[in-house]
Amino acid sequence: MRHLMSPLDFSVGELNEIMNLANDIEAHPDKYAHACDGKKLATLFYEPSTRTRLSFEAAMMNLGGNVLGFSSADSSSAAKGESVSDTIRIVSCYSDICAMRHPKEGAPMVAAAKSSIPVINAGDGGHQHPTQTLTDLLTIRSLKGRLENLTIGLCGDLKFGRTVHSLINALVRYENIKFVLISPDELRIPDYIREDVLEANHVDYVQVERLEDAMADLDLLYMTRVQKERFFNEEDYVRMKDFYILDKNKMDLAGPDMLVLHPLPRVNEISVEVDDDPRAVYFKQAQYGVYIRMALILTLLEVKVC
Amino acid sequence: MRHLMSPLDFSVGELNEIMNLANDIEAHPDKYAHACDGKKLATLFYEPSTRTRLSFEAAMMNLGGNVLGFSSADSSSAAKGESVSDTIRIVSCYSDICAMRHPKEGAPMVAAAKSSIPVINAGDGGHQHPTQTLTDLLTIRSLKGRLENLTIGLCGDLKFGRTVHSLINALVRYENIKFVLISPDELRIPDYIREDVLEANHVDYVQVERLEDAMADLDLLYMTRVQKERFFNEEDYVRMKDFYILDKNKMDLAGPDMLVLHPLPRVNEISVEVDDDPRAVYFKQAQYGVYIRMALILTLLEVKVC
Amino acid sequence: MRHLMSPLDFSVGELNEIMNLANDIEAHPDKYAHACDGKKLATLFYEPSTRTRLSFEAAMMNLGGNVLGFSSADSSSAAKGESVSDTIRIVSCYSDICAMRHPKEGAPMVAAAKSSIPVINAGDGGHQHPTQTLTDLLTIRSLKGRLENLTIGLCGDLKFGRTVHSLINALVRYENIKFVLISPDELRIPDYIREDVLEANHVDYVQVERLEDAMADLDLLYMTRVQKERFFNEEDYVRMKDFYILDKNKMDLAGPDMLVLHPLPRVNEISVEVDDDPRAVYFKQAQYGVYIRMALILTLLEVKVC
Repeated sequence: MRHLMSPLDFSVGELNEIMNLANDIEAHPDKYAHACDGKKLATLFYEPSTRTRLSFEAAMMNLGGNVLGFSSADSSSAAKGESVSDTIRIVSCYSDICAMRHPKEGAPMVAAAKSSIPVINAGDGGHQHPTQTLTDLLTIRSLKGRLENLTIGLCGDLKFGRTVHSLINALVRYENIKFVLISPDELRIPDYIREDVLEANHVDYVQVERLEDAMADLDLLYMTRVQKERFFNEEDYVRMKDFYILDKNKMDLAGPDMLVLHPLPRVNEISVEVDDDPRAVYFKQAQYGVYIRMALILTLLEVKVC
Repeated sequence: MRHLMSPLDFSVGELNEIMNLANDIEAHPDKYAHACDGKKLATLFYEPSTRTRLSFEAAMMNLGGNVLGFSSADSSSAAKGESVSDTIRIVSCYSDICAMRHPKEGAPMVAAAKSSIPVINAGDGGHQHPTQTLTDLLTIRSLKGRLENLTIGLCGDLKFGRTVHSLINALVRYENIKFVLISPDELRIPDYIREDVLEANHVDYVQVERLEDAMADLDLLYMTRVQKERFFNEEDYVRMKDFYILDKNKMDLAGPDMLVLHPLPRVNEISVEVDDDPRAVYFKQAQYGVYIRMALILTLLEVKVC
Repeated sequence: MRHLMSPLDFSVGELNEIMNLANDIEAHPDKYAHACDGKKLATLFYEPSTRTRLSFEAAMMNLGGNVLGFSSADSSSAAKGESVSDTIRIVSCYSDICAMRHPKEGAPMVAAAKSSIPVINAGDGGHQHPTQTLTDLLTIRSLKGRLENLTIGLCGDLKFGRTVHSLINALVRYENIKFVLISPDELRIPDYIREDVLEANHVDYVQVERLEDAMADLDLLYMTRVQKERFFNEEDYVRMKDFYILDKNKMDLAGPDMLVLHPLPRVNEISVEVDDDPRAVYFKQAQYGVYIRMALILTLLEVKVC
């Protein structure tokens, strides 16, 4: 039995198979409509996350399965002091697979150790959110046709952004990836990513401060938010805040095939005027999130559909 | 693709078809038990409303469909500052139709503009609650046999009562409707309803202060609550509070076919001794609420059952 | 139509049939996978209880049925002042059977009186929690092969423990049951159980203060927690707290067939080192909880499976 704790749990080959399956689901959804008939997914969300939870639930329902669970810790037995280890053993009696979101890093790992059903980490604090990363990979592969030979802009808070770190870790396994790291000086990528991941893997990267300076060179741009409170001083914030807002003018600087991704929710870092640009694929990303979760559930449950 | 924002979105003819469908569902539920197999309803309740939410969920389940969603804004991404427009685009990837309850007037309309799935307004602040009105119409038509030629008492807080305003707007489209408006002076129907709806449509109405003065003339009585805090002074409240409580004595003044409706929840404005009177149909109304929502889901999804 | 309010609602003969059904479900789950197709369970939880709620939901889903409801009173119409009697009448329009958890004793009874669907008491304050007791009985009968001729240790807070009182009431109906009541002096079984239940039924019992003094004689040990705040003084607590913690050393004093049960959640009253002992069956108990609820739903809905 396998769990999913980190995007790197799967080899590049295994991931390819999962993405192939996701694309087959996209092309032939009816083929999979009863693949999980009679099976149950437990969504154990100790911390609310509507989008992620609903994506898992939609995925399981699309496969014919059922869903039970909770959407916040208040209404769970965690409030009565039960350990995650005990909860997962009980939930193993109630369901066939489980997606767990927890504010504490490592909680899904603790659960997996005692579980008799596959556990999917649906986000553990600032640590991992593997299904987001797999969603990103599937979106890129499906819409660009490849995961190799890409120049990828990562924009926003590169210091604290879990999603970005995770995506870098996942992408360095592919050939000829170049990164353009776009952030204010104080929110640059941390050394343990820059040195231990990028440089250790001989991956090309440049660091730039202004989004508009990067646009022309990118095959895709991965946007994230820069929160005001991350800046060291008000002055810097006022000077730089517009550098990291993607609008129509900045889009005009990019090539015709440059895709824009965003893990969502977005606040104002992408202007709504960009939404109708065919290169803006962040809402399509949400759809790929359902397909990859369907593929993942099938894979972990070892359900084969012919 | 159509949405439902207001009860007036449908013409009288369209509404008749939907009500015919609801009555067919009532008569032959098995015929519809798999009409929405494989389809998903999202219930996006930014404000709790158990009765309305469960009615939608029961409706979709009766059609063989699945349900996902959230029951309050705390556990939703609204807390992270996501706009309703962005949320609906994501939810469009997760489901086939959506029912949205929101404390802000117009929020479902904003959602509908960006949605790629039908949106049903399940109540937006003090503005509209169209499925309640359609439930009321179906209940009246099913139990009285008609929506024309009726003398209808509306009792309670007619000034602020959203349900009552909506029902008046819906009923003036039928022939020979007379209203008896029963309320304290300070909670009379507002001028924009009295003048612009009733008088503009040449609809007969009288205004009375005491429920017992109206009972004898009514074909049906629509009860709502008068909240203490709506009165200008304590003295008025004490003098009048019993005027608006329906009890056995007042029921004795009414004809044998006069029906009592109430949108529920009731607190004490209908005495429990009235519950067993065959003319009390407010619990049957809840059942019609499920049938009309089933008919509505089928209509908006353009699902035909032969 | 029958409801389940107390474990004693069923005769010993009826209970035997329900447990036979539960064991048949355990042996042949596929036979029952569509027994409740098209039926709906409402889970009305006015007080959160994840484990109990999920167990009911899993049970209904295993039978092919659907689930709707709420998991805390905040998001329910109770907040708007609706009575339980009114709520159940509405919910009767939405579902075929209902499980109700309520902080007030007797609330499910009030609901049952007005309900047109079967109501299962899923715990009402400190009063009853009949499906826990039926789970306990099924676990004992399935794993020991009998409910007669047993020496049963009940350990922990025997004064306030609802689960323990309920289990005693249920077990005194079987032949030759002996109880070993293990608790601090101040948390002994109350007189109305000791005199009116045990002595009135001529059931053998002894009261002991230390768990280790009891272990050797038991066929099974039912553990519950002793909360610090129940002790009269700190001194007693410090002196006695280890008496009521089950660990490997105490397990060594017991026979090879002595089973350990616990209603869960456990905090620290059973050391995790005991979990892997084959005699520790408290996680299996959770599985039996699903089977008994499946059998109960089938019985109350009068669904026969051949």
